[in-house]
Amino acid sequence: MIRFAQSVTNLRTSEIRDLMSLATRPDIISFAGGMPGNELFPLAEMDEVYNSLSDKEKQMAMQYGPTSGLPCLLESLSSFLEKKGLPVKENKLMITTGSLQAINILAKAFIDPGDSILVENPCFIGAMSAFKSYGANMISVPLTKSGLDLKFLEEKVNADDRYKFFYFTPNFHNPAGTLYSAEDKKKIIQIMNNKNIPLIEDDAYSDLYFYPEDAEDLKTVKAINPAGIDVCYTGSFSKIIGPGLRLGWMLVPPHIYQKCELLKQSFDACSPSFTQVLADKFIRTEFIYTYIERVREEYKKRAEVMIKSLKENLPEYIEWNEPRGGFYIWLKLPEGTDSTEILKIAIEKGVVFVSGKTFDPDALKNDKIRISYCNTPEEVIKKGIPLLAEAIKEKCGK
Amino acid sequence: MIRFAQSVTNLRTSEIRDLMSLATRPDIISFAGGMPGNELFPLAEMDEVYNSLSDKEKQMAMQYGPTSGLPCLLESLSSFLEKKGLPVKENKLMITTGSLQAINILAKAFIDPGDSILVENPCFIGAMSAFKSYGANMISVPLTKSGLDLKFLEEKVNADDRYKFFYFTPNFHNPAGTLYSAEDKKKIIQIMNNKNIPLIEDDAYSDLYFYPEDAEDLKTVKAINPAGIDVCYTGSFSKIIGPGLRLGWMLVPPHIYQKCELLKQSFDACSPSFTQVLADKFIRTEFIYTYIERVREEYKKRAEVMIKSLKENLPEYIEWNEPRGGFYIWLKLPEGTDSTEILKIAIEKGVVFVSGKTFDPDALKNDKIRISYCNTPEEVIKKGIPLLAEAIKEKCGK
Repeated sequence: MIRFAQSVTNLRTSEIRDLMSLATRPDIISFAGGMPGNELFPLAEMDEVYNSLSDKEKQMAMQYGPTSGLPCLLESLSSFLEKKGLPVKENKLMITTGSLQAINILAKAFIDPGDSILVENPCFIGAMSAFKSYGANMISVPLTKSGLDLKFLEEKVNADDRYKFFYFTPNFHNPAGTLYSAEDKKKIIQIMNNKNIPLIEDDAYSDLYFYPEDAEDLKTVKAINPAGIDVCYTGSFSKIIGPGLRLGWMLVPPHIYQKCELLKQSFDACSPSFTQVLADKFIRTEFIYTYIERVREEYKKRAEVMIKSLKENLPEYIEWNEPRGGFYIWLKLPEGTDSTEILKIAIEKGVVFVSGKTFDPDALKNDKIRISYCNTPEEVIKKGIPLLAEAIKEKCGK
Repeated sequence: MIRFAQSVTNLRTSEIRDLMSLATRPDIISFAGGMPGNELFPLAEMDEVYNSLSDKEKQMAMQYGPTSGLPCLLESLSSFLEKKGLPVKENKLMITTGSLQAINILAKAFIDPGDSILVENPCFIGAMSAFKSYGANMISVPLTKSGLDLKFLEEKVNADDRYKFFYFTPNFHNPAGTLYSAEDKKKIIQIMNNKNIPLIEDDAYSDLYFYPEDAEDLKTVKAINPAGIDVCYTGSFSKIIGPGLRLGWMLVPPHIYQKCELLKQSFDACSPSFTQVLADKFIRTEFIYTYIERVREEYKKRAEVMIKSLKENLPEYIEWNEPRGGFYIWLKLPEGTDSTEILKIAIEKGVVFVSGKTFDPDALKNDKIRISYCNTPEEVIKKGIPLLAEAIKEKCGK
């Protein structure tokens, strides 16, 4: 009999993996994925970047790099992050193998089996799987239209200060699409002030805003740089260059960074130099700014087409967020609906999405649906949403 | 006060990191590194590979891939591993972000804080840092000229079957350079048979043999595929293409694979697609075979130059292994010598190496020295070894 570690014995495969295999079938319209559309990747820019590399740079690309990241990328990424108002100089920056690794490293740095942490409900599945793998006890704070149930958060942290951290995704939440209001962010700072509970601010989507007038709401908590709170900020190139690079980062206070670097060393020694060299050039050529501009407009168009189609096809009683950026729309079905049953009907009709339970830290509520427009062209969205609507109506009525 | 997880609070930075920064100084001759020489990387082949990619392949390179690895690479790597006699079909293969990640995932899969595991003494530092980070209690088995202290191993596993696994590096050990004899490998299989203690066979170097007549000894334990033992085999592209790709693999029994895939998902979702696409082509073009041939000859030359220079310069009382492959020579200083003191003298003379304590799971003995010839050209080796010899003589006598 094989004897696995405790925290591992309970790990289970999630529904989302089978979906992903479905999602790649050509005959299926997928609103399930959280990845950029293949047709949107900056291939021409990448060719130009690769062909501009000197032999010395290619050698660097093939070699081990420092655990913290290649100095050239740390420099160019710093300038990119400073443009976003982030306090790079007062903190330490580390390149990670995707931002999920940054979240996993922070989880390992803080969580002993049985420790309680605060997360949002709903919550990003990748983060939850990392937290579970370290035996965390997840206490979930409900999301609201403008952000978070602040009263709930305040009660929790006032009643118990042993939470190891609060993990949240305030900018275009996955799956809920929510953009926290500046007001809510300020209140969270007040509530968490001097509570000795670090914040992990996951910011994979903030560059993909649709409305420049949201600038004030888009300001990250890390950029506000509140005194009396340790804010661990994580970000990623996955949505603004390509996930295949597997490059993300953490920007964290020095006393936290030190442990994270030791953990990173034991995880994979360093992030891929090959893609770090490419990402560095992609920033220095400023391709990154024109590319973000390009996908921002494309995602905005797709979101508008999806919203229009939802309005035309969904029954009155279904509520959803109108996304102001990011990848996702979060449909609220009638209380108690089992969205997995709707998923089965939808698959028969040739369309897939992710059911709500996947994102529930308590693995209970299943009366929501995540649909994404990020990797589905407009014409396909127009075909798929009516099929989704049919599936919902069959289960929940006209 | 920040509250880190238990296993993390004890993590400390190792001497080797400061060395690495020294090692990159142009005025310093470094025998410290474990990385291929920059001038040896297959840049021309990589250009050819990149320029041969179709847009579809470039899109795949920019996108997320399956957690287990890109199907094309799993296929080409399988054929590469089957040529080495590995039982690919009876096991499951997973692409990891370097083989250190494979080792780390296996460590997490098995280790609860306080669990005992068996390792070699000396032991690969990366593996030790992973094992420590999960709170493992490392019981170390001494290496011998032909492999392992088998009597010691047998006593340990007969006295106590609670060891979670035995981690070993039988082919061109890092740091000891040892190639286990076929005889020792067979005896290890006898000893571990039906003990319910999985083996983790770390095989990053076996392609870098100098003497084809060693074929019998080079056969991996995984290739022998012993019944009654779970062998988890790990390998890497780092020494046969380039570490900058950050690609390795694990080949493990299906019942162990399942948990590892869940952990991999929570670590970084998938390995870099970009470098997976390149590695796949590098195998399919058969560049990998000609490149291995090329570096094999170069490392053999460098090893011979280093051995010759050691013989000419080192005092009689210093013993070392004559490497038959891999990257390392392991110098045995007089019992009780503190090699860190020699390192200080050596640095003044302009040469660095890694002191023995770095590789001691018990962090006690420091009377050994690891020198590597892998990334030092012949002329530099000829200049550096006499300086190293001077430093040793100053401390230990003529």
